[in-house]
Amino acid sequence: MRLIVGVDLGGTNIVVGTVPEDGSALYGRVSEPTPVADGPEAVARCMVELVERSLHETRRTLGQRQLDVAGVGVGAPGPIDTTSGVVLLAPNLGWQNMPLRQRIAAATGLDATLDNDANCATFGEWWRGAARDGRTVIGLTIGTGIGGGIVLDGRIYHGASDVAAEFGHTTIDATGRRCACGNYGCLEAYASGPNIAKRAIEELESGRPSSIPGRVGHDLQRVTAQTVYAAASAGDELALEVVRDTAKFLGVGIANFVNILNPDVVVITGGVTQAGDRLFAPLRLEVARRAFKPAVDACRIVPGMLPGTAGVFGAVAAFKVQRWGAV
Amino acid sequence: MRLIVGVDLGGTNIVVGTVPEDGSALYGRVSEPTPVADGPEAVARCMVELVERSLHETRRTLGQRQLDVAGVGVGAPGPIDTTSGVVLLAPNLGWQNMPLRQRIAAATGLDATLDNDANCATFGEWWRGAARDGRTVIGLTIGTGIGGGIVLDGRIYHGASDVAAEFGHTTIDATGRRCACGNYGCLEAYASGPNIAKRAIEELESGRPSSIPGRVGHDLQRVTAQTVYAAASAGDELALEVVRDTAKFLGVGIANFVNILNPDVVVITGGVTQAGDRLFAPLRLEVARRAFKPAVDACRIVPGMLPGTAGVFGAVAAFKVQRWGAV
Repeated sequence: MRLIVGVDLGGTNIVVGTVPEDGSALYGRVSEPTPVADGPEAVARCMVELVERSLHETRRTLGQRQLDVAGVGVGAPGPIDTTSGVVLLAPNLGWQNMPLRQRIAAATGLDATLDNDANCATFGEWWRGAARDGRTVIGLTIGTGIGGGIVLDGRIYHGASDVAAEFGHTTIDATGRRCACGNYGCLEAYASGPNIAKRAIEELESGRPSSIPGRVGHDLQRVTAQTVYAAASAGDELALEVVRDTAKFLGVGIANFVNILNPDVVVITGGVTQAGDRLFAPLRLEVARRAFKPAVDACRIVPGMLPGTAGVFGAVAAFKVQRWGAV
Repeated sequence: MRLIVGVDLGGTNIVVGTVPEDGSALYGRVSEPTPVADGPEAVARCMVELVERSLHETRRTLGQRQLDVAGVGVGAPGPIDTTSGVVLLAPNLGWQNMPLRQRIAAATGLDATLDNDANCATFGEWWRGAARDGRTVIGLTIGTGIGGGIVLDGRIYHGASDVAAEFGHTTIDATGRRCACGNYGCLEAYASGPNIAKRAIEELESGRPSSIPGRVGHDLQRVTAQTVYAAASAGDELALEVVRDTAKFLGVGIANFVNILNPDVVVITGGVTQAGDRLFAPLRLEVARRAFKPAVDACRIVPGMLPGTAGVFGAVAAFKVQRWGAV
């Protein structure tokens, strides 16, 4: 069976794995911190090294000297031109107009494709994860920002200029919190990891009792979303309230997506899924309260099943669609 | 050339016309007020009479005794099951589970199809109107409510359960104005015709000077959105402000749709287009301020070109897709 290498380039880590074309396994999973500070060429070199390491480990695992490798699928952040294979803009990497596909293809000697990382995470969950069998799938990746992907009838939906599914920058409160993008009231301004932490810190600064300060040596600047989830798990009332509010904000945004796209699956990936049912139960309630009943009834809202590898599987699936027309 | 009859069933009027399969003309355009109070069967009978009148007039216009009629495409309000041809729920008509397609087919002896009216209006503007050549088209129909349609690659996008594109009930302000649907902050609660009038009345009740009261015999309950547009055309400051605010609210909602779907056309139909550039200029500005630049650059936001007949053309196009696989 032919193999495809999947590369998930993130602002923090690069994750690479080798997948048989039927998606039945993930061999040679390797990862390194993204050397952002060393510039685009260093990042590309690191990606190529990881591809070679992944193939090396796959050969050992399978006990084969020669592998039949069809190519490399890459998922990368930022608006991307999927046709030319160029990353147009990736603020977290400091990149502009980086011809990433051609770099990877030239250095590996393999065919390569490029798509957006959040698209790939959604596509991976559709192919091998929690959104399997969905015909109309919405994916939200909630981490430092809120990215998204839309999968319709087994294909990534790209829109007119490859920038569809920017769910994080949809407005849920036209006069609300300032977002890093310059607007007011974006979903991301409430529910991304850093903004979950920020809302907790605001509550703590009002002097409310909580176990959170003790968890960070009383240095509130060290509070992260993970601190909040851990405190909520331990029953901390303030942390539970922050998680419930997060669920409400996400519920408003997702109700909008449900009323617009009438999906059969909404799959949520990223750190926020650590909050578990404490998040998902009130989130589903808020969506049910706000969206149309026939749309709510048709849709399941689930956490991703492939933490850390959805983007790799999705990059492989995107390669298959770009090169062979279907997954 | 084969002909298809298009029927646009609205809460106020039924409009019917006969269209050659290439969409090059509209013959026998006839219309009647919808006899809502007389019940579903009376409405269906009225639709059938209008189909027969339209075909009669078409025969006269074309000077032919016999027409080659392929069938009837119907657009009707409410969530619809396009497969079974049933109107599931239409509050404005007081209908529930009305097997409209079968009624029309049985009474006319013609093949019939059914789709949602706002879908049809968008599809009509794509086929023969302002959204021609769009690959990714969003339509908003702004009247008593705010309906919508999505056309992707020449087909109506229906979603998982036929209720996609409920743009009017997306939230733009989670803690905002109460909507008739029970939620808070829906786009419709700000920008539908009745809510445009309501916002004007609220301003007038604060005692601000305006020409509006004089236009309605000083009976503020008679103010409609049309009154506001007429006053704005005459330079009335309060009316102009209401139109500018409407543009902002619509801009927030449309920026969300643009960030989610990255369309190449947003086409707006219905009474609100009477406000012309006074509405469209600030609306486009608000979208440009809020949505991603590559998405804004890819998208034109235009008024519909087929007032009163977009739904008829769209119902015909929907017939073609359902029966022949493409327009």
